[in-house]
Order: sequence, then structure tokens, then C-alpha cells
Amino acid sequence: MTGVRLLTVPTAGPDDTTALKALSDSGASPDDVLAVIGKTEGNGCVNDFSRTLAAATWDPRLGAEAITVFSGGTEGVLAPHVNLLVADDSHDPRHDRGLVAAVGSTPVIPPDELGRAGQMEAVRDTVAKLLVDLDVAVDDVHLVLVKCPLLTSTDIAEMHGRGVEPVSEDTYESMARSRAASSLGIALSLGEIDDDTARAALAGRRTAWSNRASASAGAELDTCHILVLAESPAVSNPLRALHTEMTDAYDLAALQDAAAVVAGRGGRIRQLFVKAESAPSGTIRGLRHTMLTDSDINATRHARAAVGALAAAVKGDAAVYVSGGAEHQGRPGGGSVTVVYEVDPAHTATSNRGAER
Amino acid sequence: MTGVRLLTVPTAGPDDTTALKALSDSGASPDDVLAVIGKTEGNGCVNDFSRTLAAATWDPRLGAEAITVFSGGTEGVLAPHVNLLVADDSHDPRHDRGLVAAVGSTPVIPPDELGRAGQMEAVRDTVAKLLVDLDVAVDDVHLVLVKCPLLTSTDIAEMHGRGVEPVSEDTYESMARSRAASSLGIALSLGEIDDDTARAALAGRRTAWSNRASASAGAELDTCHILVLAESPAVSNPLRALHTEMTDAYDLAALQDAAAVVAGRGGRIRQLFVKAESAPSGTIRGLRHTMLTDSDINATRHARAAVGALAAAVKGDAAVYVSGGAEHQGRPGGGSVTVVYEVDPAHTATSNRGAER
Amino acid sequence: MTGVRLLTVPTAGPDDTTALKALSDSGASPDDVLAVIGKTEGNGCVNDFSRTLAAATWDPRLGAEAITVFSGGTEGVLAPHVNLLVADDSHDPRHDRGLVAAVGSTPVIPPDELGRAGQMEAVRDTVAKLLVDLDVAVDDVHLVLVKCPLLTSTDIAEMHGRGVEPVSEDTYESMARSRAASSLGIALSLGEIDDDTARAALAGRRTAWSNRASASAGAELDTCHILVLAESPAVSNPLRALHTEMTDAYDLAALQDAAAVVAGRGGRIRQLFVKAESAPSGTIRGLRHTMLTDSDINATRHARAAVGALAAAVKGDAAVYVSGGAEHQGRPGGGSVTVVYEVDPAHTATSNRGAER
Amino acid sequence: MTGVRLLTVPTAGPDDTTALKALSDSGASPDDVLAVIGKTEGNGCVNDFSRTLAAATWDPRLGAEAITVFSGGTEGVLAPHVNLLVADDSHDPRHDRGLVAAVGSTPVIPPDELGRAGQMEAVRDTVAKLLVDLDVAVDDVHLVLVKCPLLTSTDIAEMHGRGVEPVSEDTYESMARSRAASSLGIALSLGEIDDDTARAALAGRRTAWSNRASASAGAELDTCHILVLAESPAVSNPLRALHTEMTDAYDLAALQDAAAVVAGRGGRIRQLFVKAESAPSGTIRGLRHTMLTDSDINATRHARAAVGALAAAVKGDAAVYVSGGAEHQGRPGGGSVTVVYEVDPAHTATSNRGAER
Repeated sequence: MTGVRLLTVPTAGPDDTTALKALSDSGASPDDVLAVIGKTEGNGCVNDFSRTLAAATWDPRLGAEAITVFSGGTEGVLAPHVNLLVADDSHDPRHDRGLVAAVGSTPVIPPDELGRAGQMEAVRDTVAKLLVDLDVAVDDVHLVLVKCPLLTSTDIAEMHGRGVEPVSEDTYESMARSRAASSLGIALSLGEIDDDTARAALAGRRTAWSNRASASAGAELDTCHILVLAESPAVSNPLRALHTEMTDAYDLAALQDAAAVVAGRGGRIRQLFVKAESAPSGTIRGLRHTMLTDSDINATRHARAAVGALAAAVKGDAAVYVSGGAEHQGRPGGGSVTVVYEVDPAHTATSNRGAER
Repeated sequence: MTGVRLLTVPTAGPDDTTALKALSDSGASPDDVLAVIGKTEGNGCVNDFSRTLAAATWDPRLGAEAITVFSGGTEGVLAPHVNLLVADDSHDPRHDRGLVAAVGSTPVIPPDELGRAGQMEAVRDTVAKLLVDLDVAVDDVHLVLVKCPLLTSTDIAEMHGRGVEPVSEDTYESMARSRAASSLGIALSLGEIDDDTARAALAGRRTAWSNRASASAGAELDTCHILVLAESPAVSNPLRALHTEMTDAYDLAALQDAAAVVAGRGGRIRQLFVKAESAPSGTIRGLRHTMLTDSDINATRHARAAVGALAAAVKGDAAVYVSGGAEHQGRPGGGSVTVVYEVDPAHTATSNRGAER
Repeated sequence: MTGVRLLTVPTAGPDDTTALKALSDSGASPDDVLAVIGKTEGNGCVNDFSRTLAAATWDPRLGAEAITVFSGGTEGVLAPHVNLLVADDSHDPRHDRGLVAAVGSTPVIPPDELGRAGQMEAVRDTVAKLLVDLDVAVDDVHLVLVKCPLLTSTDIAEMHGRGVEPVSEDTYESMARSRAASSLGIALSLGEIDDDTARAALAGRRTAWSNRASASAGAELDTCHILVLAESPAVSNPLRALHTEMTDAYDLAALQDAAAVVAGRGGRIRQLFVKAESAPSGTIRGLRHTMLTDSDINATRHARAAVGALAAAVKGDAAVYVSGGAEHQGRPGGGSVTVVYEVDPAHTATSNRGAER
Repeated sequence: MTGVRLLTVPTAGPDDTTALKALSDSGASPDDVLAVIGKTEGNGCVNDFSRTLAAATWDPRLGAEAITVFSGGTEGVLAPHVNLLVADDSHDPRHDRGLVAAVGSTPVIPPDELGRAGQMEAVRDTVAKLLVDLDVAVDDVHLVLVKCPLLTSTDIAEMHGRGVEPVSEDTYESMARSRAASSLGIALSLGEIDDDTARAALAGRRTAWSNRASASAGAELDTCHILVLAESPAVSNPLRALHTEMTDAYDLAALQDAAAVVAGRGGRIRQLFVKAESAPSGTIRGLRHTMLTDSDINATRHARAAVGALAAAVKGDAAVYVSGGAEHQGRPGGGSVTVVYEVDPAHTATSNRGAER
């Protein structure tokens, strides 16, 4: 159980740690950082070394328990930045609740289990443990964010050498399978789906999802890094969160409705965590899109560019966390949305579930 | 002076002419088509053969006077489609005005003049002639849309062989120079800038622009194809137009303000013609974007993906005309916007200049 | 049974038909053309409209029986060009044999059969028929070149709507599956593999291949276009062919050995038909390559660029036919190679099987 | 004056330092390393963070005087690897000469001087100093390798803010200008061109070049890192070098001729340092290439893929140093070539200038 503050700082490159200065100016130290959640400016796909560079830069500067999650791809208007979740248990008596966070990692996910039940269950179990640590009602959880591994061609070759079939022969596709397994693990741990549904989904059915799951994959790690964000009456700080869902990649209404709820609560949006994907059906609202047939730009890059513009417009600046590939993170073609916002202490704390889907 | 109807039809590919069926169903023939303005699904850059394919498919099916403008690039949610501007001088007595269009082409733009005064003046003169044909007040013009040539590496080599320096050594950059010259020609013909300003702008200053100019470049033609859209009291049809400006690539407010004006007039948006670009400063609202340093995806592709999502959200479907590279088409980093809308004849016709920038 | 000449003409773009002038200058007419085999300058992947443009340009200019095969992708040094196989039964008494060709098409390949037994068998049967027409010994066949369809996202969605599982969910991957089925059909018809081996290969085993198969896939057709090239003692012309295999993507020795055989026979290389691919193992000669983990450039583009340089160096010019994706067209990571060459009539005709693998 | 050994080690990623193990196994320590010259697997263009990651990983592990040069882009068959130049002054009496190296850095190159005379002169002066240190005849120098900065969009915006015009508005183009300035500085210091020629070349004329210059640009540094390789009679080791020139991007003969010289001297190729570029004329040997009109893949990536295949074929493995963008590094469209080879001590040492162009 840790109350948190959020520090969002633009970066000049993946290896920019000037956020540490802002952290220090705010009176905190690197040891107080629970998680660094960043958007870096690579392609967000398999060979995105901007993520690796960011992780290599940040990891040695943080405490041993902290996690890093770097999501590549700042297509379109998106601004590279980091979000620091900083432990802060100062008690502000004007608030009867506040935002809490917990972080952890699964054991190493062996390539054989990537995108499969082993990964799903590892995520489920680690999230479950974090929920116990947080001691919050499941309904008060608004985001479970996971960074998970992928299969490299070295992994795939090594598995073939052992006669083991990888979940995919294609490194880019392995990212999707990894995100799927992580997201289903989250949905399981939140009690949103049952085991049978999870297994059917893992096998390819897109009928189950969580609007609180956000998973991104990368070559820079072999475990899953996990962050859970929730509200809790056990702390007192001005941060709140709500979650909702974009039903397709230009569902501006979902974002503006959520913003209206925040405004109605006297809040100010501090950050949006949004998942984006191209509709697997090849159409959106009945019209053909071309993201899946573009052999020059991967579909996740298209989706981030599109959704990023909407999120930036709603937040008012482009330092938003928009991550591509929303398998089981919101309905197919849509994406999960978490809004972290700050309320004026003068404003009455109210239930925040009205806008949620 | 020709009153027009607008037919917007999704396409299954650049060579899809099923719009001709819709045209026929509406009682018109290909000879009635003034212009086919399409979005095709190539990269929108130099080697975009989706434009050439569309032009090769459509040109022989239209009358000799008709023009085609194919703008490549349907990044993100954008839906490939064609917009047919169909001559229709039927008189609807419930309307005291309506939308008119005129089309034409400049003479061939020699490579030596591409991106230079020769092209600018050719566009200026052809637009001026079209304005005379239309016989409308300049303030009633809401869109001048141009398709203009670019320099291929063959052109550049040929010029070097003659000892002539091309406006750019880089084929992709030549598209920007061509759009710039066209747009300044438009601004001149609309009386928005003077000759000195135009020349300074042609030399690189981004201080002059038109919010009614929309230019796209391609290898599939050697003249400039030009369409002028205006309102006129000399015809009576339900179409109207207004123009405004996005001040940056996520200026959703500009689009939503325009939509509110349309709604206030009892109108329904039929099409958005929007130019998109990445801010040449490298920042938007003070935050860094990465469109200009992404060596994998050209900046125009990023910009279309971002702006396309906003336009689709505002129109409610993704068959919107969003074109990349907005040199002198709206302020730097922004883009010109034209909204074509349809009013209910029951609704009182009112001035439409309120929302314009 | 048709003796053929080969006319290789560079193109200024996918819609360049100046080869017709060279054809006319050579005394032939478009009706004499059996096949146009071209390299066009698109991405060679799913959304490559350079192929469609070329086909749309050439098809109406040729006789009803002629086929076109356009292979996209002229990466690296490769020069866009067309190869016209022109029927020519003039008898040159100085030759006791010559090159013959036959062309045909399969029935439409329904999406349900794409990449599956149905496609494989359709190719097998059509090739078998062409071999009968040619009346040559199987050993005298040196190239079976196929252009085959792919799955678009529209196809995939339509199949899902009918509850049918496509051979792949990924449009780019469907190209590989289509090439595989075509190539196994070729290998079957040439008696190089048996049915069981073919079926195992179709299911994913890369242990069977033909060094005479060359398949490329595209969205521009729904049947498979097929060309068979062989030598025959029934005609008398100066063209000959041989085939061999690159064992990996920089197996220059294979090409230079073949060139030495040609030289030894007093011949001059007229064209190389080479398949290229990135080693599926992720390594070549024990060292890692990065073609399969590059999310910005598809692996087939990398492979064409690499192999194209070798083929150009050996031929001495870059108008070589190098096509990407060599599933079952040569061993994994390698590629089939056919050399068409011209012998000096003064030179004694000799067996050409020495260099073949 | 330092005799050197060369250790070439494949890498599993940009941050792979297993070469240190090989170094240790060979009896040396990181302090003995003069330079790490690596090929990393990014796009080799502006936003290539594989270079930054490699530099961030290696720099802290080396002595203060050592330099790193990471060249991005392992297109086609190229294998990511590092080349360690290790000081080794052991005296092998069977050799009357050997390979020597010197390394250094220029002062910081301010953005205002990037691609301009300031950078050119800084490189010239630093190379001159290194030549003095080496105390070798200019003819014995076979490679001057430079890693130089580029302009980011932040740099460009900052310069505009100060009213200073950058050498290019385009970040990718700035890489070419930086390589050009570095290469001309090298040519000056080697006495290959005079000041007037250098200045004319800097202004855009491609009539001057050095076949010993190899420059690559990156965002990961603000000085120029420089390595000079030469032969010297003052040391005794088995390494030798020669240099030559590819006259175009498939000039295999140049490489094979050099290999023949090495073989004639009883040598074995240890490494090739080759520059690659797409012919600025748009044609190679009279045929059109499409590298300059491909808006999806930058020309340097195409060129590396093509030339890399040739170099790998000649060396026999793909861990070759092929770097893209050969402005003034060999003639236009060609590229400089340095071959480092090892001679059998039993073999008589002979002059190595026979093959040089």
C-alpha cells in the first residue's frame, strides 16, 4: 500500500534522465520511485532499441524494487516523455482517498511459455499478489500495466533446435501473442473472465477483454514488469483515476466523455494511458482501413499515430501514454483507457465509476 | 458557373470505379463529372503508384474537361475513397445559393520551373481564370485544390546534364517545393498575399499562407490540376462550404468549432478537406515531436495519420480527405480546412463566415 | 511447342510500354508475346500497386493467351525492366535445339484454398498440362515461374464471416503461403517430390524444394499465371537455359559457377531468374542476420537487395529478375536460379546439365 | 605509434559486450583497446538508437583514450559485430612491418559548423596530428575512419531561433553533409586535394574524393571520433592493409581484384571496410535504379544491403564493415574500400600498393 504522486517529464531522447532533476526538486529521491513508465521514440516493434537504451539508462539509477516500462513509438504528434510514479505517503487531510500503486515482476518467462498459458498464469499470479499488497477492492483498480517479453529470431531458432514449436514463427507477431497472454492474465486476476474464457481467448478468440489492461512487449526484458494503479481510502492525496474504453481507433467520444466526468468532479487530467490498435476486421464503422495491408508501416505504428492525436487533443498536450497492440485490452479494434486526474481538495470526493465501461 | 453535387464513395482499391455505379444510380453520367478527388492507399510520397493507377483508371472514363486529383496516403484510420463533384444545375427554389465548382489545368510545368516562380505564376493565372469563370466574390471561395508534379531522379539527372540546378536534389523534398509554389499561387490569386511576400515565401519564409489552399504533389502528372469550390447566389442547391485552419496537428478545437457552426446552420458535414503537416520547428505546443527525425516513416505519413483521426472523429466516418504537407496551406505546423456541408432546405440560409479564420 | 526469343527492356515506370517499340523494331507484334515478366519498383509486398499498374497497362495490349507476371521490388541496385518472351519459330539450321515456352493460368484460386492443397494441386495440374503441350523431357525444363494471389484483409474478414479459417491472419504472411503452395505444385509436376512430401511441406516443413520453381504473389490477380521454360530439340534457336541453386543469400559461387558453365559453352548470359530469401534460421553461415527482426523493412525486401547485387554483378547489368520469398524454391535461406543464355551458332551445342544442382 | 591486433566478434545485440571475453581470452585488457568499430542493427539513419545504446554500453568499459565508432544498419545479409583494435607492440621478428593505429577526437563540432568548413578543418587538423603521432608515410595510410555528429530537429530549431541557417533543414540530409565535411577533411590531411577543391566540394561538387576515407554520422556524439590505420616498418606484426575503390554499388570486380592481391601475397582477409551509396545520378551503368525515389526505405539502407552482399561473398562471412553514404569517399555512386589482411610470416613481405586505385 503506497500512496503515489505522478511526475510527467518530456525527454530529449531515450537516455534523457533530466526527470531526476524534477524529482529532486520535488523533494524526492530515486529510491522513492516505484515505476518509470515512458514513451520512447523507436518503432515500437521488435528492433526498437530506444526501449533498451531507456531501460539501460534508468535501471541502474532506481531502487532494486522499482520497475521500468518503456513503450516504443511516438508516431504522429506524440511527445517522448517519462511518467514517474513516486511513493508519497504524506497525508492530506482534505482528501478521503487517493491513488495507490504497487509494482512487481513475474519470474522469467521462458520462450516456450511466451504467449501461452505459462505467461498468462504468471501475470495472473503476480497481479493477484500485488492486489493483496494494495488491499483495495477490485473495482478500485483502474490500470494494470505490463511490459512483457517477445520472441527474437534467436529464440525461435533455439526452440526449433529443441523441437519445440514457438507460439509464432514471426517476431513481430510474437509481440501480439505476448500482449494477449499478459492481458488475459490481468483479466483473470481482476475476475473479469474465467479460466475457460481465458483459454479460448488465448487460442485466438477476441471475445474477452479488460478495459483496465495495458500490455506492451519488448526485447529488453525476460520477465513481465507489472504496475497496478488503484484508488484507496487508506491514503489521502489528490490523485484519482477512472477507466473506460475506446470502441474503435477514432472513438473520440469515449475520451471526451471521460474528460467530462473528470471535469464534473472538479478534476484536471494528469495523464491518459490508452491502448490503440487497428481493427482486425479490416474495417472501422463499415469503412475499410489499410493498416493491415500496409507492408511499409506496421499496424501498431498506424494505430498509435491515430489514437495519439485524439489523446493529445483531449489532454491538451502530447505527452500521453499511447501504446499499440490492444489484444484483449478493450474490444477488438478499440482499446483500454485509464485517466489519471487530480482533484482540487476543495472539491467533494465522489464516486468515480459513472463514466466507466 | 456550375452548380455541383458531391458523391463520396469508398473504394476497394485505387482502381475501383464502382463510384460510377453510384453516379449512374443518381441519374448522372461520367460526362457530368467535373472532378474526381480521391484518397488512395499508397505512401503518398514519391514512389506512390496508387495515385498513378487511380489516374490511369479514371482518366479514360471521364470527359475531356474533367480533372482528377489523387492524394496518396490513408494512414491510420483513413478510408480510401473518391469524391465526385458532379455538375448539377437543377434549381431547388428552397435555396437562395449553392455550391459551385470550376476545374482546369495549367500548362505543363517544366522541371526547371518546378517549385519556382514559373509554377507559382502558372497556378495563380489558372486559378484567376477559374475565378472569372465562376463569377463569385473572392470571399465566397472556400477551397482551391491543386494536384501538382514533382521531380523524379530522372528529372534531376536530366537537369544536371543541362547544367541547370533543380529546386531540390531530393525527390521527396521536391514534393514540398511543388506544394509550396502551388499554394503561393493560390494565395496570390485570392489576393491574400502580394508578390513580394510570395517571392519571399518561395525562398523559404513560412510567414504567408492561405487557409483555402490545398496542394498535393505526385509523379503521375506534369501539369497542375486545379479545382475551385465556392458558394454562389447564382445557383440553388443544398451544399455549402466554409473554411478554417488547424493551428497545429492536434487542433481538434478548430474542427469542432467548424462543426458547431455547421450544426448551428442546420447543416450536416458532407466532407472535410484538411491539410496536415508536422511542425517544422520540431515541437508542438512546446513539446518535442519526432516526425522529422523518423528515418523510417516520412513526416507527411505521420501527419496524415494524426490529423486523419481527428477529422474522422469529427465527421463520424473516416472517408475524409486529409492530405499531407501543408506548406503555405495554413500556418506552419497547422493546415487549411474546408468543410463541405449540406443544409436542410427548411433551414434559413445564413452567412457562413462566422467560423472562418 | 513454341520457340521463343527474349527481349529485355528497361522501364521508366511500371506503366512504361516502350518495350512495344523494341518489339515492333524486331519485327514482331504484341500478339506474338507469350509472356511479360517484369520487375516493378513497388515494395513487393501486399500493398504494391506498381504490379497492379503494370498489369493494368500491359494486359489490354497483349493477346488473350498471353500472361503477365510482375514481381515487385527493385531494392538496391536492381533496375526496373520487362522481359518479353516472344514466340519465334524461325528455324536457324545452325542450332540443333533451342528455348521453348508455354504459358497458362489455373482456374481462380478461392481464398479458402490459398496456400493450401487446392492451390498446390491447381498449379500442379496446369504445369502438367503445359509440359504436355511442350512435349519436352522433364530434365529439359529449367524454369517454372508462377504469379499467384494473396489474401487481402477483405478476404480474411470475409472468410471469418463465413466461419472459415484463412491460412494466415496476416496479409504479408499469406504471400509466403501462396508462394509455398505454388512451388510445391511445381515440384510435384516435375516429379521432384511425392504427394506425402508435398503435404508435409505445405504444413510447414522446409525439407522439400525445387531449384526450377520461382513463385511470386500479388493482389493483382486471382488465378495463378504460369510460364514454363525448357530446351527442346524440336526448335532451332540460339537460346539455352540452365538452372542451379544459391545455398544462401550470398552464395556468389553458385552464380559464378553457372556463369563459368555458360562461358564454357561459348554462351552469353541473357537473363538471370533468381529467388531470394532471408534464412529462416536467423543465421547465415553461423552468423546472425537481422532481416527477420527488422520491423521497418520486410525480409523479402532485404533479401532482394542483397541477392540483386550479386546477380547484377554476375550478369554485368542490373536488369535481372530477382524475386523475394523463396519458400520451397531452393533450400531454406537459398533460392532457385535459372540462367537464360545465348550461344554463338558457331559453338558446338553440348549438354547443359553439368552445373546443375 | 602503436602496433595493433584486430578482434572481430559477432554481437547478439547492440549492448552485447561478449567481445570483452574474447579480449580477455587473448590476454589483453579493455585498457588495451584503442577503438571499437561496430556495425549495429538500427536503421543507420537519424533515429538509430542502436548506435547510442552500443556507445553507452562500451564507452564506460574502455580506457579514456579509446574511441568508439558505431555504424548503424546491417541490411541484407550483414551480421552485427564489433571490431576491436587492440594495442599490441609484441615484436614478431618474422615480420618487417605491421599494422599501426592511432585514434583521437576533434573538439565539439557546434551545429553551426556541422557540414561546413569548421567541421572539415577540425577533422583535417586532428587527422594531421594523428599522422604525426603515427610517423608513417602518407602512402602507408590505408584508412581514416570518422564518426561524426548530425543535426537533430532540436538543433535546427535552436539555430533558427538564433537566426542561423543550418547546413540543411532535413535531419537525414544533415548526415550526408556531415560525412562530406569529414571526408573532405580527411582528403585534405592526406594531401589528396587542395583547399580550393575542398571548398568547391563542400559546396556540392562531387569531383573530389578519397579512397581511404570512411565517415559515418550519428546523433550519439558531438565530436568526431577518428581512427587512422596504416602500415609501418616500425612494428612487426602479421596485419597488413590495402585500399581500393568500388566504382559503383555492384563493382564486384574491385573487391575480387583486391582479394586476388591479398591472395597473391599469401594473405587472408581479416576485414573489409567498405563505403556504399546509391548513385546520385539515378542510374548505374546506364540503367535506372530506384534507391533515390523510394520514400519507404532511405537510400543508404538500400546501398548497404547491396554492397554488403558483395563484401560478405568476398570475405566469406557477413561480419563485414559496410557503411552507407559515401560522399567524397570514393567516386559518386562508388565507395572507398580498405582491406585488412593477415599474412603468413613465412610469406615474403612485399609492397602492397599494386591493387590500389
